Amino acid sequence: MVDSKALDRHVRAARPKYDAELRRWVEIPSISLLPERRPDIQRCAEAAAKTVIALGGTAEVIETRGNPVVVGRFASDRKHPTATIYNHLDVQPAEGAAWKRDPFKLSIEGDRYYARGATDDKGPALSVLHAAVFARQADVPLNIQFIWELEEEIGSPSFDGFMQKHAKSLRTDVVVVSDTVWLAPGKPVVSTGLRGLQGATLRLETGTEDVHSGLTGGAARNPMVELCNLIAALHDGGTGKIHIQGFYDDVVKPTRAELASFSRCGFSLPRFKKVYGLASLRSKDPLEVMQAIWARPTLEVHGIAGGYQGRGIKTIVPPFAEAKVSLRLVPNQTPAKALELLRAEVKRLNPDVVVHGESALAPFRGNSTGALGDVAVQALRFGFGKSPAFVREGGSIGAVVTLERHLKCPIQLIGLSLPDHGYHAPNEYFDWGQAAGGMKTFAKYFELLPAALRGR
Amino acid sequence: MVDSKALDRHVRAARPKYDAELRRWVEIPSISLLPERRPDIQRCAEAAAKTVIALGGTAEVIETRGNPVVVGRFASDRKHPTATIYNHLDVQPAEGAAWKRDPFKLSIEGDRYYARGATDDKGPALSVLHAAVFARQADVPLNIQFIWELEEEIGSPSFDGFMQKHAKSLRTDVVVVSDTVWLAPGKPVVSTGLRGLQGATLRLETGTEDVHSGLTGGAARNPMVELCNLIAALHDGGTGKIHIQGFYDDVVKPTRAELASFSRCGFSLPRFKKVYGLASLRSKDPLEVMQAIWARPTLEVHGIAGGYQGRGIKTIVPPFAEAKVSLRLVPNQTPAKALELLRAEVKRLNPDVVVHGESALAPFRGNSTGALGDVAVQALRFGFGKSPAFVREGGSIGAVVTLERHLKCPIQLIGLSLPDHGYHAPNEYFDWGQAAGGMKTFAKYFELLPAALRGR
Repeated sequence: MVDSKALDRHVRAARPKYDAELRRWVEIPSISLLPERRPDIQRCAEAAAKTVIALGGTAEVIETRGNPVVVGRFASDRKHPTATIYNHLDVQPAEGAAWKRDPFKLSIEGDRYYARGATDDKGPALSVLHAAVFARQADVPLNIQFIWELEEEIGSPSFDGFMQKHAKSLRTDVVVVSDTVWLAPGKPVVSTGLRGLQGATLRLETGTEDVHSGLTGGAARNPMVELCNLIAALHDGGTGKIHIQGFYDDVVKPTRAELASFSRCGFSLPRFKKVYGLASLRSKDPLEVMQAIWARPTLEVHGIAGGYQGRGIKTIVPPFAEAKVSLRLVPNQTPAKALELLRAEVKRLNPDVVVHGESALAPFRGNSTGALGDVAVQALRFGFGKSPAFVREGGSIGAVVTLERHLKCPIQLIGLSLPDHGYHAPNEYFDWGQAAGGMKTFAKYFELLPAALRGR
Repeated sequence: MVDSKALDRHVRAARPKYDAELRRWVEIPSISLLPERRPDIQRCAEAAAKTVIALGGTAEVIETRGNPVVVGRFASDRKHPTATIYNHLDVQPAEGAAWKRDPFKLSIEGDRYYARGATDDKGPALSVLHAAVFARQADVPLNIQFIWELEEEIGSPSFDGFMQKHAKSLRTDVVVVSDTVWLAPGKPVVSTGLRGLQGATLRLETGTEDVHSGLTGGAARNPMVELCNLIAALHDGGTGKIHIQGFYDDVVKPTRAELASFSRCGFSLPRFKKVYGLASLRSKDPLEVMQAIWARPTLEVHGIAGGYQGRGIKTIVPPFAEAKVSLRLVPNQTPAKALELLRAEVKRLNPDVVVHGESALAPFRGNSTGALGDVAVQALRFGFGKSPAFVREGGSIGAVVTLERHLKCPIQLIGLSLPDHGYHAPNEYFDWGQAAGGMKTFAKYFELLPAALRGR
């Protein structure tokens, strides 16, 4: 039995260490999208391995065809079951004037930790790590293993290769992926599904350089306009409906039970709008919104490169335009088929547009019931005093499906981040309340797990 | 009678001076679009006035509510008629990797003068200036006056105010605007029409900052997608057709005589494509292309700001998107009505999109016949050995309509630039052949003008 007082003391005592380690981790700009950050990725992996070793575990930095993976271990006994925690230590880029602080310096303001990667996903990773230290000290009969990836933000291109090679040595009874977001402060969730992703660029070249729109306009093809025509044919931004032939064929609608679970989960439309700074949404009906973000595919245009972006207008016809798009996918869609359908539709609409596939992540559908579900509920109730809601998550974590396929064990999604923390947004932060509650939650989770696994 | 040999000597002798003056002028980055270049605008005006004075004329830099205007004079006698030459000394921005040389250092390579502003419009201005010097020395009975604007590239916002205040002292019998482009080397034109312009930004704000497309996508409005929907509803990039209610109502089609003049002007479709680096056009029919660029309105999207522009994709929903667009207008459309119709259509299609009007320039329709037309033909034949074609120009020069309204005199459009010179494009250049031919052309023009004006 985890001694609650001892745990409280452990958590309080861990804080200075937690702060220092988080600082070390977040101040390494481990941006996987930028090739020039490759040395920082390596440094981050090594720093994380060092942290595990300093806390009494063992750790290795395992090379892959891409970025390395850090594997940490707090071993108990080979006879005991094993739990594996997945986090990622790479981060999104952090440019732009909206950042009020240096994104790669940790600013501790009260209980808040401001930095790129603080909540996505370095802070949560460190919380679970401290819970493992406690479980080890409390002699919980469980081997605890960490898999920390450094390519999550670019769609985990090397993770499948890594798992293929190392699945045997990573044998485990359960995986917890801790990279998801609560509904709100005080409203934890256990996520039972993730959307997949198929990224793409749609590029149209019509010339070799900027040309004068007076001298050529009317005869010259305008790649910006043609891309707008194409995107409008693919997607209605008003309704969110996607016009790609066959695209919805494999979509499995949420069950009635799942919709009921959505309805009573405590999702608040005004809060959702406030947290993300969205003045209006495509729908005013909360259940519609939940379905739109958790259980339906999307087509997003993230930006259109090319042409003039500065002040005012510049009267040129640009030589190319490139739309950066992605499709979020739901069970049972697959990225490969989605990309193929997109290609075919683009070819029908404008054969000169070149479709280049980017990150691909399969959607995930998990289970909310049974002994493991109960352990998650009890652990979160212990850590935060609240029962979680079982809902889906709109984001994508490519590693989840890979872990499931190679390790052939149940996957649970128990995150510690709040919507306010700003996943992928400027001024990202994590907070001590979630960090401390997370330590307690996972300490309890590790305590309850052996019995639950025996009972399966 | 202009002595041809004396003129040839004059032109040859002028070259070192021409080179030095052009260097002085183009190395001042007089970019009217960028407010931080205001001191350079002033420097450029003063440098130009100094050049006139050094060449024996008088000059003043006249302040306006915006950028100054340089007025230069080579006076003969009050009884003699006056010809006024309009050029502009402000330039387009010059950023981007496509520039192979510093755009604000003059690179003389053989007969070519590479620099931003070399052909648009500093090089031609200097050519005509040297022609005026010769006419003065040859005692041609004509007062020659220069109006050099420094706001042409931003739509001449202060030029109307300037003309209103100074029209009386600028009284003239004819204005030649020298800011147009030939059909090809050896194919001079006299332009009988200009398109107008109405610029605008279409801005849609749907949030306050980047949000995660997994966590919000589907429910969050995507401003990029909605702008694409809007633009597609306004404009078909395939055909060039514009879907704004009432937009074509005032368009006057070219006359049969004008179309015949287009047909025999020597326009070459392969050359047009080659010069502007355009692999394919909206039409393969030369007359269609000429009408599209000279006699029909357009809607161009110059760029869409907002969102992610970097490598790969970044899975965010951006908080805003802003399309930079312009409408080229033809007689008898007006910028004010075009903007009003655009606003109304946008409001119908997406009332959340804010339309902000940018530069506005009226279209122009001139006359190709009569004594003045003959002078232009003879002058170009003298200067370049070729008769000009009478065609229209697809670009816009706001000052033309302003000059016509305030000075109530005929306006002729006689340019010296070649398509290859790259108006508004990277690696802009001018060449000595056009500069020297231009000096001869305008010397002849000034010689023939007094008689032609008397004969009117």
